[in-house]
Amino acid sequence: MSILEHLAYRDIKLLTDEQVNTLCGELREAVIRTTARQGGHLSSNLGVVELTVAIHRVFDTSRDRLLFDVGHQSYVHKLLTGRAAEFDTLRSFGGISGFPKPEESVHDAFVAGHASSAISTALGMARARTLSGENYSVVALVGDGALTGGLSYEGLCDAGASTEPLIVILNDNGMSINKNVGGMALYLSRQRLKHGYIAFKNFYRRLMRKLPGGKRVYALTHRIKQTVKEAIFHCSMFEDMGFTYLGPVDGHNIKALTAALKIAQEAGEPVLVHVITKKGKGCPWAEENPDAFHGVRGFDPVTGRIPPAGPDFSRVFGEELCRIGQEEPRLAAVTAAMPSGTGLTEFARRFPERFFDVGICEGHAVSMSGGAAKQGLIPVFAVYSTFLQRGYDMLLQDVCLGREHAVLAVDRAGISGEDGETHQGSMDVSFLTSMPNMTVWSPASFAELRDMLRQAVFTETGPVAVRYPKGAEGEYTLGGAEAVSLLRRGEDFTLLTYGISVNTALRAGALLEKRGIMTDVIKLGRIKPLELEDVARSVRRTGRLLVLEEAVATGCVGQQVAAALAEMGVPVRTLILKNLGDRFIPHGTVEELRRMCGIDAVSVADAVSRALDAGEDNGKDKT
Amino acid sequence: MSILEHLAYRDIKLLTDEQVNTLCGELREAVIRTTARQGGHLSSNLGVVELTVAIHRVFDTSRDRLLFDVGHQSYVHKLLTGRAAEFDTLRSFGGISGFPKPEESVHDAFVAGHASSAISTALGMARARTLSGENYSVVALVGDGALTGGLSYEGLCDAGASTEPLIVILNDNGMSINKNVGGMALYLSRQRLKHGYIAFKNFYRRLMRKLPGGKRVYALTHRIKQTVKEAIFHCSMFEDMGFTYLGPVDGHNIKALTAALKIAQEAGEPVLVHVITKKGKGCPWAEENPDAFHGVRGFDPVTGRIPPAGPDFSRVFGEELCRIGQEEPRLAAVTAAMPSGTGLTEFARRFPERFFDVGICEGHAVSMSGGAAKQGLIPVFAVYSTFLQRGYDMLLQDVCLGREHAVLAVDRAGISGEDGETHQGSMDVSFLTSMPNMTVWSPASFAELRDMLRQAVFTETGPVAVRYPKGAEGEYTLGGAEAVSLLRRGEDFTLLTYGISVNTALRAGALLEKRGIMTDVIKLGRIKPLELEDVARSVRRTGRLLVLEEAVATGCVGQQVAAALAEMGVPVRTLILKNLGDRFIPHGTVEELRRMCGIDAVSVADAVSRALDAGEDNGKDKT
Repeated sequence: MSILEHLAYRDIKLLTDEQVNTLCGELREAVIRTTARQGGHLSSNLGVVELTVAIHRVFDTSRDRLLFDVGHQSYVHKLLTGRAAEFDTLRSFGGISGFPKPEESVHDAFVAGHASSAISTALGMARARTLSGENYSVVALVGDGALTGGLSYEGLCDAGASTEPLIVILNDNGMSINKNVGGMALYLSRQRLKHGYIAFKNFYRRLMRKLPGGKRVYALTHRIKQTVKEAIFHCSMFEDMGFTYLGPVDGHNIKALTAALKIAQEAGEPVLVHVITKKGKGCPWAEENPDAFHGVRGFDPVTGRIPPAGPDFSRVFGEELCRIGQEEPRLAAVTAAMPSGTGLTEFARRFPERFFDVGICEGHAVSMSGGAAKQGLIPVFAVYSTFLQRGYDMLLQDVCLGREHAVLAVDRAGISGEDGETHQGSMDVSFLTSMPNMTVWSPASFAELRDMLRQAVFTETGPVAVRYPKGAEGEYTLGGAEAVSLLRRGEDFTLLTYGISVNTALRAGALLEKRGIMTDVIKLGRIKPLELEDVARSVRRTGRLLVLEEAVATGCVGQQVAAALAEMGVPVRTLILKNLGDRFIPHGTVEELRRMCGIDAVSVADAVSRALDAGEDNGKDKT
Repeated sequence: MSILEHLAYRDIKLLTDEQVNTLCGELREAVIRTTARQGGHLSSNLGVVELTVAIHRVFDTSRDRLLFDVGHQSYVHKLLTGRAAEFDTLRSFGGISGFPKPEESVHDAFVAGHASSAISTALGMARARTLSGENYSVVALVGDGALTGGLSYEGLCDAGASTEPLIVILNDNGMSINKNVGGMALYLSRQRLKHGYIAFKNFYRRLMRKLPGGKRVYALTHRIKQTVKEAIFHCSMFEDMGFTYLGPVDGHNIKALTAALKIAQEAGEPVLVHVITKKGKGCPWAEENPDAFHGVRGFDPVTGRIPPAGPDFSRVFGEELCRIGQEEPRLAAVTAAMPSGTGLTEFARRFPERFFDVGICEGHAVSMSGGAAKQGLIPVFAVYSTFLQRGYDMLLQDVCLGREHAVLAVDRAGISGEDGETHQGSMDVSFLTSMPNMTVWSPASFAELRDMLRQAVFTETGPVAVRYPKGAEGEYTLGGAEAVSLLRRGEDFTLLTYGISVNTALRAGALLEKRGIMTDVIKLGRIKPLELEDVARSVRRTGRLLVLEEAVATGCVGQQVAAALAEMGVPVRTLILKNLGDRFIPHGTVEELRRMCGIDAVSVADAVSRALDAGEDNGKDKT
């Protein structure tokens, strides 16, 4: 009989050790079974089964606040907090989200999706708790990867100095999405080894190596004693910041975890619990290759075989960048801990000296690229649209202001599907086009991606973004790097679009033709700066314009075009803006979400038909 | 005879010790004299006189790359690198910028203005240098305040792990703009004291205090020996990150500085030189009160007397927030190291337990506020528009997505004047209005600021921004929190505006009336969500619309309104958008910059006149 199936939340604390072990097995099974079918994050969730159970044995998340950093490791938590029955709807439209979502359950304390924010939000909650005189616990569960992000550091510094009772659980699996890079990773590796003599030996050797003389300024001494070894065990960065450091704790030993968490719960000050876990734990093929099962579309739950994926924009980008790298020695590739997700694995293998994985540090990646560009490199920072949001200010100051020739390869632009609100690429059109000196290309096909990437690297001289969607191309497969192309001709309506939406616009055009309505379909290859002569000519003829795009409403290309046409004095009798609207887009398949937003071919065609049915006087006398 | 006046750059290295001392005196005098008249950053520049001279005695910044973090401490550098003769034009329109600017001189390696980016840009430059086989030095000069920013941490981690030859000079004056806060500040304080026994005693005491038992999980030991004291001297965070740590060095001793910098120059790996300086050094009243002379409008160069400032929006905000804080115990104020700049000094004094200065950490401030709001506080984060850019992603994910009731008090919105490109508040309209669930108020007067702030705290329930300009209000002094107000009536043209620009619009309306042209002047109090019925009614009557605002062009309110009117079917014969355009705005007085952008009253009136002169058919037949 399944324990999980019948487990009331409050009873988790009552289970015997044996029942807990059985439960952990059932949780693993549920995670594997559901992720195999629905896709999602396998390795990270398998890694935190015992840790999550231990958290729920010590805390009560209906009142204590548990904050997941990133949040894709919250499946076990969801299974334990009343969502086991619906868990098979994971990541499907209207179903259980793959990330924490307060609308779903009181047990989900806060939204999450981007890395490194949990310590900050936890501190805010702890402060609110203390000021309102309440006494629940606030716990942030943070992966070591997220700790490479500067926001985590800002949160740690403030939390440590605050003396607010607050628990940070550092879930240390020595791997963010690929493997950790940077100083913090080195530091944690050292912490992990600290009970061994190896750590001390390395430390000592490094100190010795750094003594070239100059004793007056070097604050070093040769009289380092054996007892230094002990000292480094305590002189942790976290202690320096004001945290009490507990650990390392075996993250798969529920008793040890429970003991540590209970101490943390009682401490009454900022505590960091350092937990060592193994990604993919309990599932041999996931343990062996956790990166492959980080975010996965689906797999065979028994063998772990992942069906081969077809070509997609990320892969096409990576392949073309390798070719360009071969031709142009000044080209460098930059990633923020996503080499495989962004298609850079092969580039990293072939050009290791020109490949920079900077950790989950999008802001730094942008500023670093700005500096590199200033001194003659051509950096290409490949990043998901939603994560580039972290580099907003750095883009303005360190790339756009000085017109540095840095290239942004903006992946997952537009609707990205099952990961939901925090992962949709709905903002980049608005923010990239608002930045002075920026050029933005929006390829509609693999061939266009290749050509526009070459345009960005070889022809442009300032900041340039090439933004492309998740997944495969559609029917439209032509290439080129044209600012504007007229794809279909008609007298009744102008359909303007760019990027992957061109497929929808062409389908809508074909649907409308069957209804006797003839449309111009114009595709923008470049959305900043806009080149609107052809659009103006078309709209002068049709008098009617629909702009279709996968972007948030405010600041979208449609608004920009409408304003520009009005400034040019081009009369638009009917304007229809079809975009993502002024809202966040939930999880679901890309097609479901397009229908939800009314940007699928049928909705577009119907909107045009309706507008024409409303007649020539449309709008003129509307109140 | 003045040394500075006749000093060729290459000769700095040839000066005798005595001449160097004289030079330092002259540099101080020039900085004080010019800042007294032109305004600017006094304390920080006085603090780095010797350090800057030492840098130029060791490096050659025409080829070595010197990156200033923040950059307002670059005056001495400018004086030494060929700009002494024009230095009296500092911060004036067309004159020398108060920040590094590559257009000005090859000695200015990169733009700067926002904190914490220099290590990142330096690392990019170092990587470009190494890949291109060149061998110049790359030096980042970073204040301890900037080190509280997460971007610095991201840069340090990547740089430390990179093993790239790179020098970070930590200019440690124990003060960012006010005083440093957070874990890093504690850490540096400890480093500063590290030759003393005090540091060790405190460290030891803290360790002991944190031993409540639980030995199995606590990785602590009681057998801490006297020699631990030595260990902590080396176990620095910077060493952990992969830097060789040099210091602390007396930042006013040129010989010691030169010696340290020469070692760093030769090191061939990442080096951090920890330099202790005193803000305001050599100027008694600035040393005593460095905060007052951080960014200053002008003062008496002999007595240091600062002429009293009139009321401004920051002060009005701070006063009203104190009143609101008195009424509403759930209200909390948050600042990112700018308590006095944002007008929060008095709030901090009166409500210390509800006042949070988080360091130069805008991203964290936003996320922390989101968490606090979720648990029932009403956080008000007061921040300059340009610095809020750092919190772009956090605003979306940690405030807007969950509709948290956090209030942003966005100061210096619009043109802010003499600090130039990096400090203008030109982006907030575009990015705040693009965010779903956000409400944005834009007060036009002190009274409106008070009323809209109350509206934001007491009436709104989701994310809300109140954005207001630098400086004093204009002729318009009415209060209220109205979404839309009609301020003037006329049949010929609709002038739409918001915020401080209402003064310009009203003046333009008066000018036009003298020319026989009658205008509707409509003021938006709330720019998101837009309420456009009154505007539509007016434009249906006049057929012509001018939208005036201090915002970057793309995503501005004018574009949004133009698109919305077209969607509503309201015909606009003539549309004129008057804004900051698609560019960065340099330094100068606010009035000069408004004229430059064509958004002063005369330019606005002339644009309207011209459009009417062009006749009724304007635009209709334009090509």
